[in-house]
Amino acid sequence: MAKDMAEPLKVALLGCGVVGSAVARRLVDDASDLAARVGAPLELIGVAVRDLDKPRPASGVPQDLLTTDAEALVAKADLVVELMGGIEPARSLLLRAIDHGASVVTANKALLGADGPQLYEAADARGVDLSFEASVAGAIPLLRPLRESLAGDSVQRVMGIVNGTTNFILDKMDRTGAALADVLAEAQQLGYAEADPTADVEGHDAQAKAAILASLAFHTRVSTGDVHCEGIMGITADDIRDARKIGCTVKLLAICERTADGVSARVHPTLVPRSHPLASVREAFNAVFLETELAGELMFYGQGAGAQPTASAVLGDLVQAARHKVDGGRGPGESAYAALPILPIDQARTSYFIRLDVLDQPGVLARVANVFGNQGVSIESMRQGVVRSEDGLAMLQIVTHQATDAALARTVEGLQAADDVHEVASVLRVEGM
Amino acid sequence: MAKDMAEPLKVALLGCGVVGSAVARRLVDDASDLAARVGAPLELIGVAVRDLDKPRPASGVPQDLLTTDAEALVAKADLVVELMGGIEPARSLLLRAIDHGASVVTANKALLGADGPQLYEAADARGVDLSFEASVAGAIPLLRPLRESLAGDSVQRVMGIVNGTTNFILDKMDRTGAALADVLAEAQQLGYAEADPTADVEGHDAQAKAAILASLAFHTRVSTGDVHCEGIMGITADDIRDARKIGCTVKLLAICERTADGVSARVHPTLVPRSHPLASVREAFNAVFLETELAGELMFYGQGAGAQPTASAVLGDLVQAARHKVDGGRGPGESAYAALPILPIDQARTSYFIRLDVLDQPGVLARVANVFGNQGVSIESMRQGVVRSEDGLAMLQIVTHQATDAALARTVEGLQAADDVHEVASVLRVEGM
Repeated sequence: MAKDMAEPLKVALLGCGVVGSAVARRLVDDASDLAARVGAPLELIGVAVRDLDKPRPASGVPQDLLTTDAEALVAKADLVVELMGGIEPARSLLLRAIDHGASVVTANKALLGADGPQLYEAADARGVDLSFEASVAGAIPLLRPLRESLAGDSVQRVMGIVNGTTNFILDKMDRTGAALADVLAEAQQLGYAEADPTADVEGHDAQAKAAILASLAFHTRVSTGDVHCEGIMGITADDIRDARKIGCTVKLLAICERTADGVSARVHPTLVPRSHPLASVREAFNAVFLETELAGELMFYGQGAGAQPTASAVLGDLVQAARHKVDGGRGPGESAYAALPILPIDQARTSYFIRLDVLDQPGVLARVANVFGNQGVSIESMRQGVVRSEDGLAMLQIVTHQATDAALARTVEGLQAADDVHEVASVLRVEGM
Repeated sequence: MAKDMAEPLKVALLGCGVVGSAVARRLVDDASDLAARVGAPLELIGVAVRDLDKPRPASGVPQDLLTTDAEALVAKADLVVELMGGIEPARSLLLRAIDHGASVVTANKALLGADGPQLYEAADARGVDLSFEASVAGAIPLLRPLRESLAGDSVQRVMGIVNGTTNFILDKMDRTGAALADVLAEAQQLGYAEADPTADVEGHDAQAKAAILASLAFHTRVSTGDVHCEGIMGITADDIRDARKIGCTVKLLAICERTADGVSARVHPTLVPRSHPLASVREAFNAVFLETELAGELMFYGQGAGAQPTASAVLGDLVQAARHKVDGGRGPGESAYAALPILPIDQARTSYFIRLDVLDQPGVLARVANVFGNQGVSIESMRQGVVRSEDGLAMLQIVTHQATDAALARTVEGLQAADDVHEVASVLRVEGM
């Protein structure tokens, strides 16, 4: 925090739906934290909406920040975040912002898939940032690694599960054997699919994302219309069953390839071997699998949609674009942050898997359980094996709820001292339960 | 390619082992490609080695670039890549480079884990880049996403498989039931474990990486010595078997947590449920699983070691640091790149899974196979189902080797016209076989 703060940077937000509200909330609520990360305060100067009177109970955006005059708002901003969606007026507003010298952040895959090159060129010519991490695979940091981390490597192939709705449907069909129509209806009930699911199930959503991925991966121009597209509506329970018989599952993949002749981009249902990392992507999660010349195989996995995850990607772009405005993008170095206390292992909380050899005596389970209880360590499950003929002992396996390492250490001491316990055979920590 | 090229940037390489050689080769062989990505040529001005006469058959580094005077080399460079390893002289050389105003790239986890803060502060004070993507999880773009993509989010927890050797051993134990000693011996024979495997199996390698991860994830200072560390030598076949019984596998995890009280970092063998994304990380692969406030769950997966993957990470850092020197880090925008031809779907190559209903007649398999052969589509496998009593037809399932979409389309036409074929029930593409 030692660095001097630069002047505040003015942020304009276009659109105030669920993602816009989440972004606005964080800009207001975590202002000082974001300022520390940027090296300058981020001042939300306005939120452009279509209708001032529409109720926005959850947005938390102060009413006086709302405006219907998006053009005037854009003209005053250093950083513009576009979350309106659709082609117009989003395109005109972004071009106007770039023209004014603002850096822009957008999650608008339709616009980027249709007119990305025009926007890229305008931003390049003006020397401002155009960032769009949220447009593909929501929260998964993917575009920045493609543009920056792999800048010294050569991407050969991209295969992505980039539509959560269709992955939810195909995963469910795979796990239950149900027909597509039934699973789609269920997905609609659960809110995983829209009332009109066309854009998802026909592959159009994935098609626009494939265009963006191919453009970035191969540093060339690919528009949505260049991407061959087939949806999942033709996939039957028989397809899934027969795929399973040959060790495969069916996924809707966006595939972008660099060949000697050029690039190809396509979206279609695809059989993927169960041993492949993409096969284990469940429910509405997204994942993008890369094959590169030097790095080999890489995969990025996470939530592809949702207000909070999308806001994470938008805010990451915004902070980075703001850093560029302040100091050329490095941001406050690692040394600029506060020194947090480092906790000893004693205070780490986790679950434990403990195996004991116990004497075969009445009441032994209760006495062992008591040792845990005395240290405040709660037992999740307890299993006793058969009594072994060779030594008359029985194996006891215990999984605990979360406890501190210190409490567990005292528990183990207590067990070792207990008359019924012959030996504590092993103590292992458990995560991710 | 329209942009004017800036003056060449002088690159010094410290160390010429397998990673150094891979980096040097790419700097020389792909000079024009890298120049286009940076906006300026990257000129390799020298490679510091300990012994000029040591044979380097595979390095391909011109002999006249080699020098033993690392200090003089560093003084002339705009960008310094340190791949010597160890604390000294690496630390002194990096500090000297920073002092001269050079940006530095290093893969040296031992140095960063021990003295990261001193280096971060020096780089911040001088306003140069200090990048170290290759120091954790090799090729996986991880540190840049943590520093940049998630800059607007808040990381709560990091769990990483960051040591390939121990993951290879534990995965093999899990899949075969073998004892650790036997699997370790095999890993040594295969080159997955060193003759002296102490740093890996005792967890020290993961410990240094945990310190780096915790520092970046929580913007605070964590040194190797702050990380609680337990290795895998105590893990028995019984542990693995019993873990399996409760639906878990055992992984060596580096765990970094942010709690209300501070941060904690630790390395230990851990039971992970098989449904968790980390459980499916096989062999010597690495993966890092993040839990953040907004993005939720994220995972990054890839190769953690090896000359080429590590070179990918080093070169990504180098290109990005060079872009900062040229134009503040944006690099040539998407619009600066060449327009590659976009191939129609006809030319896309993939494998196919085809299901046919065929008449139950002698020689039908041969005639169907002929239709494929006539279009140059080679068959990988063919399975015939039982003849159905209701219609006298049999299901034939065929998986092809890779072919173009055009050849496959002609094959399907041929099948539809064939007398023996009642119906082509489905055609699906297959990837990742």
